[in-house]
Amino acid sequence: MDVKRQAGTPLASIGEFGLIGRLARAWQGAASQGERGGLSPVIPSQGLRLGIGDDAAVIDVPGGKPLLVTTDMLVEGVHFLWSPIRRRLLGRKALAVNISDIAAMGGIPAWAFLSIGVPASAKVEEVEGLYAGMGEMAAQFGVELAGGDTVRSDKWVINVTLLGLAVKAPIGRSGGRPGDLILVTGTVGDAAAGLHLLLMETKMSQAEKMDAQMREAPIGEADRQALLLRHLDPIPRVAEARALVDYGGVTAMMDVSDGVSSEVHHLCRNSGCGARIDLANLPISPAVRRLARREGREVFAWALSGGEDYELIFTAPEERVPGLIDHVRRETGTGVTVIGRLTDGTAGVMAVYPDEMGGDAVPLAAKGYNHFR
Amino acid sequence: MDVKRQAGTPLASIGEFGLIGRLARAWQGAASQGERGGLSPVIPSQGLRLGIGDDAAVIDVPGGKPLLVTTDMLVEGVHFLWSPIRRRLLGRKALAVNISDIAAMGGIPAWAFLSIGVPASAKVEEVEGLYAGMGEMAAQFGVELAGGDTVRSDKWVINVTLLGLAVKAPIGRSGGRPGDLILVTGTVGDAAAGLHLLLMETKMSQAEKMDAQMREAPIGEADRQALLLRHLDPIPRVAEARALVDYGGVTAMMDVSDGVSSEVHHLCRNSGCGARIDLANLPISPAVRRLARREGREVFAWALSGGEDYELIFTAPEERVPGLIDHVRRETGTGVTVIGRLTDGTAGVMAVYPDEMGGDAVPLAAKGYNHFR
Repeated sequence: MDVKRQAGTPLASIGEFGLIGRLARAWQGAASQGERGGLSPVIPSQGLRLGIGDDAAVIDVPGGKPLLVTTDMLVEGVHFLWSPIRRRLLGRKALAVNISDIAAMGGIPAWAFLSIGVPASAKVEEVEGLYAGMGEMAAQFGVELAGGDTVRSDKWVINVTLLGLAVKAPIGRSGGRPGDLILVTGTVGDAAAGLHLLLMETKMSQAEKMDAQMREAPIGEADRQALLLRHLDPIPRVAEARALVDYGGVTAMMDVSDGVSSEVHHLCRNSGCGARIDLANLPISPAVRRLARREGREVFAWALSGGEDYELIFTAPEERVPGLIDHVRRETGTGVTVIGRLTDGTAGVMAVYPDEMGGDAVPLAAKGYNHFR
Repeated sequence: MDVKRQAGTPLASIGEFGLIGRLARAWQGAASQGERGGLSPVIPSQGLRLGIGDDAAVIDVPGGKPLLVTTDMLVEGVHFLWSPIRRRLLGRKALAVNISDIAAMGGIPAWAFLSIGVPASAKVEEVEGLYAGMGEMAAQFGVELAGGDTVRSDKWVINVTLLGLAVKAPIGRSGGRPGDLILVTGTVGDAAAGLHLLLMETKMSQAEKMDAQMREAPIGEADRQALLLRHLDPIPRVAEARALVDYGGVTAMMDVSDGVSSEVHHLCRNSGCGARIDLANLPISPAVRRLARREGREVFAWALSGGEDYELIFTAPEERVPGLIDHVRRETGTGVTVIGRLTDGTAGVMAVYPDEMGGDAVPLAAKGYNHFR
């Protein structure tokens, strides 16, 4: 083995966000020493308005509307298990999570670029199934396939780069102000509960499955289907984002990909605020409540740290909130719930337990998913 | 094993271009059956001017300059061998090949989005080295790091999506007309000859290396360094593309990534033309000529089918050619060579041997690199 590979800092020791910072500095360090090509006149150097660290980058194309760009890499065995049966759902989801990032900036998705790494042993029909799933999701949200790359790879790798346009001004994560209310669309925790069910069912042996059929199911079939779908087939909140932008007043927004706790911490760090989250107000579906009760889990756990709900979490001044909630419900049928309030930056991020659980305020841990831990 | 995976069409049986066509149809088929979300008013559906099948997509952002977008996925073990020592060069090249695609459309590169799959055992310094290499190349051509994704993966995977802006009208592959001359910048075959040297040196055992030092080297050290660098550290022809666009008259253009044969076939298919390539006129460097002689290879082989030269190949009406060649040389110092002429579409793609080799015209095979064969 190469001795040089043994030396150095293990990735796990700095975590994903530490790594992103070091990589941006490595790039910049090299860039500042590099020789400029003197080819810039057609490109204004101020084109990049918002770079790393938000749901999507914001680029000002000369003369045009602000362009939003997001990219995501999904690797077999890390982000998904390849299943020839679920390839259509996998395709739908791979595009959906990127559409969600564009929506979270207050944008409309438009052009997709797909790079796919495919094992040499795969069949054409498998890759077609993946593309068909993406095509379905694309059609639902007006996205065009604009380019891509198809290469050989040991494991399946799916990289989506999605371009969109801001409806009005793009909405980042840094505009929240103390006193703003914190709101979330739909319900949270469903996708994590669905994943929990899926893993439970996958791990069961055939004998256990027969045994389980004899016993009472953990939840009814309608609940089970609903939760599995939230995990396997998330629908991005594009119409809701558009309604929010049209009504106006949203100060900061992102999508719930890593769980409410993690996203609230991001919003607070970027906006220089603290927050109080009222756990009693978290919009948790009856199906999640029933499953949590059966499994003996705290009902908030999946909502706070489960992730992959792809709901929108956003902040707005209190006086805009009643109108915003009404407008989104009228335009899209989707409910919006106030879950807390931004506070002064020195107050930290606190979770307030419901009165019947003692009503304590405790620091809320940022328990988002971290790829390298 | 899952029986369903065994059924279906093997990837190798349809090749890369066949696959791309089937995938685009799979996407479109699903899209045409899908339900439209009715969210389109901010996006003109004509935004995508040029999609799959050129060096980069061309997108008309409302009100703005034409946007060029290209994406490339590189997988360890397929496109490169990971070397902690060469990580900087690998970073440079990963960005350079995308910059070359933007240049080949007559554009200036601007904003890069990087998705990197990193083995859990990798050290932070290795990933930093890769980014530092990209940052160097970026600085040389005015590219900003605008976003990305860093994920865990068994093998290293590098996906670059690069956005750029067209200097004037984007130049595709379909504008060539019978009678247009075919030209290429710089020299071709150097990168493939460099790869040949690298593979030869890598395969040699220690004993063979000592033995080789006793014998005469296949070529001098200056030749060796020059050829290795053309393979390991290609420099995209951005300034040359800009000079060509500024002068005007180029009817079709692409970069030489898969070898002159393959690129001429692409130009002809897209422009509905045939071509005659004068092998005697191929710009082949003295180093490649010397190495070919030593190795007993036909001198044209690397230039025609080797690939990775990242020169520009383009067509222009005969009357514009002398001025174009002068202008590029004056602006950039780079030589441009006429290598043939587009002909009627029925004439096929022919290669004409030099007089001293008999002067025969033979059909030119499209021997580009194909990822799935």
